[in-house]
Amino acid sequence: MKSNLLIVHGGGPTAVINSSLYGVITQAKKSDKVDKIYGAIGGSEAILKENFLDLSTMNEDKLKLLLNTPGTAIGSSRYALVQEDYDSMVDIFKRNNIKFVLFNGGNGSMDTCGKVHAVCKDEEIYVVGIPKTIDNDLSIIDHAPGFGSAARYIAATTAEIGADVKSLPIHVCVIEAMGRNAGWITAASALARKNKNDAPHLIYLPERAFDEEEFLEDVKKLYEELGGVVVVVSEGLKNKAGESIVPPIFKTGRATYYGDVSAHLSNLIIQKLGIKARNEKPGLCGRTSIAHQSSVDREEAVLVGMEAVKAVVEGRTGVMIGINRVPGDEYKIETSLIPIEEVMLNERILPGEYINERGNNVTDEFVSWCKPLIGEELDEFISFKDEM
Amino acid sequence: MKSNLLIVHGGGPTAVINSSLYGVITQAKKSDKVDKIYGAIGGSEAILKENFLDLSTMNEDKLKLLLNTPGTAIGSSRYALVQEDYDSMVDIFKRNNIKFVLFNGGNGSMDTCGKVHAVCKDEEIYVVGIPKTIDNDLSIIDHAPGFGSAARYIAATTAEIGADVKSLPIHVCVIEAMGRNAGWITAASALARKNKNDAPHLIYLPERAFDEEEFLEDVKKLYEELGGVVVVVSEGLKNKAGESIVPPIFKTGRATYYGDVSAHLSNLIIQKLGIKARNEKPGLCGRTSIAHQSSVDREEAVLVGMEAVKAVVEGRTGVMIGINRVPGDEYKIETSLIPIEEVMLNERILPGEYINERGNNVTDEFVSWCKPLIGEELDEFISFKDEM
Repeated sequence: MKSNLLIVHGGGPTAVINSSLYGVITQAKKSDKVDKIYGAIGGSEAILKENFLDLSTMNEDKLKLLLNTPGTAIGSSRYALVQEDYDSMVDIFKRNNIKFVLFNGGNGSMDTCGKVHAVCKDEEIYVVGIPKTIDNDLSIIDHAPGFGSAARYIAATTAEIGADVKSLPIHVCVIEAMGRNAGWITAASALARKNKNDAPHLIYLPERAFDEEEFLEDVKKLYEELGGVVVVVSEGLKNKAGESIVPPIFKTGRATYYGDVSAHLSNLIIQKLGIKARNEKPGLCGRTSIAHQSSVDREEAVLVGMEAVKAVVEGRTGVMIGINRVPGDEYKIETSLIPIEEVMLNERILPGEYINERGNNVTDEFVSWCKPLIGEELDEFISFKDEM
Repeated sequence: MKSNLLIVHGGGPTAVINSSLYGVITQAKKSDKVDKIYGAIGGSEAILKENFLDLSTMNEDKLKLLLNTPGTAIGSSRYALVQEDYDSMVDIFKRNNIKFVLFNGGNGSMDTCGKVHAVCKDEEIYVVGIPKTIDNDLSIIDHAPGFGSAARYIAATTAEIGADVKSLPIHVCVIEAMGRNAGWITAASALARKNKNDAPHLIYLPERAFDEEEFLEDVKKLYEELGGVVVVVSEGLKNKAGESIVPPIFKTGRATYYGDVSAHLSNLIIQKLGIKARNEKPGLCGRTSIAHQSSVDREEAVLVGMEAVKAVVEGRTGVMIGINRVPGDEYKIETSLIPIEEVMLNERILPGEYINERGNNVTDEFVSWCKPLIGEELDEFISFKDEM
């Protein structure tokens, strides 16, 4: 007897979360155990509302658009489920003949996934997680789908801004990268470099306490040498005391609001060094850019979607699809099944060996680790200034 | 007898200024009147320093990279020439056997071009301008090379962020577009729309005095209707008194510094409406993105470079290459020669008929005018949310 499969998206989108959805749908269509392929339209909240749409009837041309659509085609939510919500789910699943449940998301969604598994484990309802996060902060796995594209975006963007600043070297340009607690994306800007003196000239990560004096010293020195300096900073830089480096600008209710780190630092450069500076904060562009999707990331996103279906229809449950790198010179991965409790809410930050001593750059080891994830080589640019 | 040609870049780069350079070099190579093709390495300042590099010896593979290189491959400068500098130029040109001088730039560079022409007009030295500006604020011509790509960038980016916000509709997202005095780029974000309720939901242009109350009213209404709202604003929004809508944050010497318009407005939404908001400021990405280069823009940029060479070797001088749209249903342009004094420092802003009455959107006429300039249709996205 066939049963229905439900796919749920959680948290913020990535450039390839819809590619995983494509993998889920195409694999589930092939399975003789799956009847309808339900998308929860609007994240985990949609489970409670039984907002289920049958995706198995969508035609192939439409489905292919998923590979190049940013956001999440079935929506998402940041609704925080409570125990009562979890308790109601078994009935909902049974009522809808749902035996296979997939959660695609990051740390928060894997926590949800684990809790749904907990209420379903004595029933014939199987729950599997699909990894996704631009921040790359899921533990255990080598990297998460979504990160490779965010990495490619920041690298390509830094290279392009680098070419601009090099050709009109009159200022310091501070680029703000996503990733509040983990510096993986900020670090990936290093992949923009092809030649000596290429941008980024300085990289500041949230894993290291930010030292304003050292920062200004570093900027000044490079400005005197190059004229144009490109700095990439994490949106979440903190000082030694663990506080945001940007003074709070206002409070509402429980929340305190800070300005943008990049704006704060470019203002600091103008005020303290008297050097022209500007800031760029591509923000959401870093997770929505389809032009900078990494082909490797997209393929792996499709793969983990397919693997999740294969696992769940075999009755595997309480696990997340893992991505492991096969040792060797050539880049190759294999997937695995990781007990969900090992990944739930464990945040993985950039390890010390990927950061240089001064805390203003990444190491070659990081670059080697990250390079295969961004896909094809970045475009080569030409500068006749180098020929003079 | 052959003479040398000099090409000078002025002001900020565009995504296609190097495409014009490609047009200049390829056309000049064909001319039996041109010997060396000199690039002024570092803008008009390089003329005074005689920093000339012979580009005619570069191989074709290298030259082709110009079509996809951001920044300017021969550099640029913001150095303000004084009369003494202009007076010294005839000798410099003669000493280097330079008879043909091309300036590629916007309003400021066309002013320079006019002044260089003034000192050269009694000599056998010919001076022609090539239009370039992302801001599209050059007068007389239909549009300037560089604008089409900046327009495609903001449209594609707004569409992508729109897909993100639609799939997780929990906030207002304020995107800041380049163009301080002229709203052409900000307006072009409207080309992101394909379906009803697509982003951008609101557009605020520097041509209209910004009214905070109306803005908050518009945002609130749309947030209640859609949940996620995307607003595109010009970096140069001003109030009725003609002052920046952002309070000044600090002063250094003569200059007053303001924060980012997008950050200011998203803070306003949080504080006054209690709605979650964030801001994105892609900034320089808007003029460096090769992935979002418009094919039409690139072709036209090559064309005006070639036309400038054709004109200057025929002894035309004191003119800029114009781009005129041929009337008719199909998009077609022709080039012309425009007396340089007609374009010098005349800034063209968005005309009234391109802005809606409320001042929070553009008209269909603007969209029709702008659409051909961004090249191919933007990618189609899929949302299953629409099927529920």
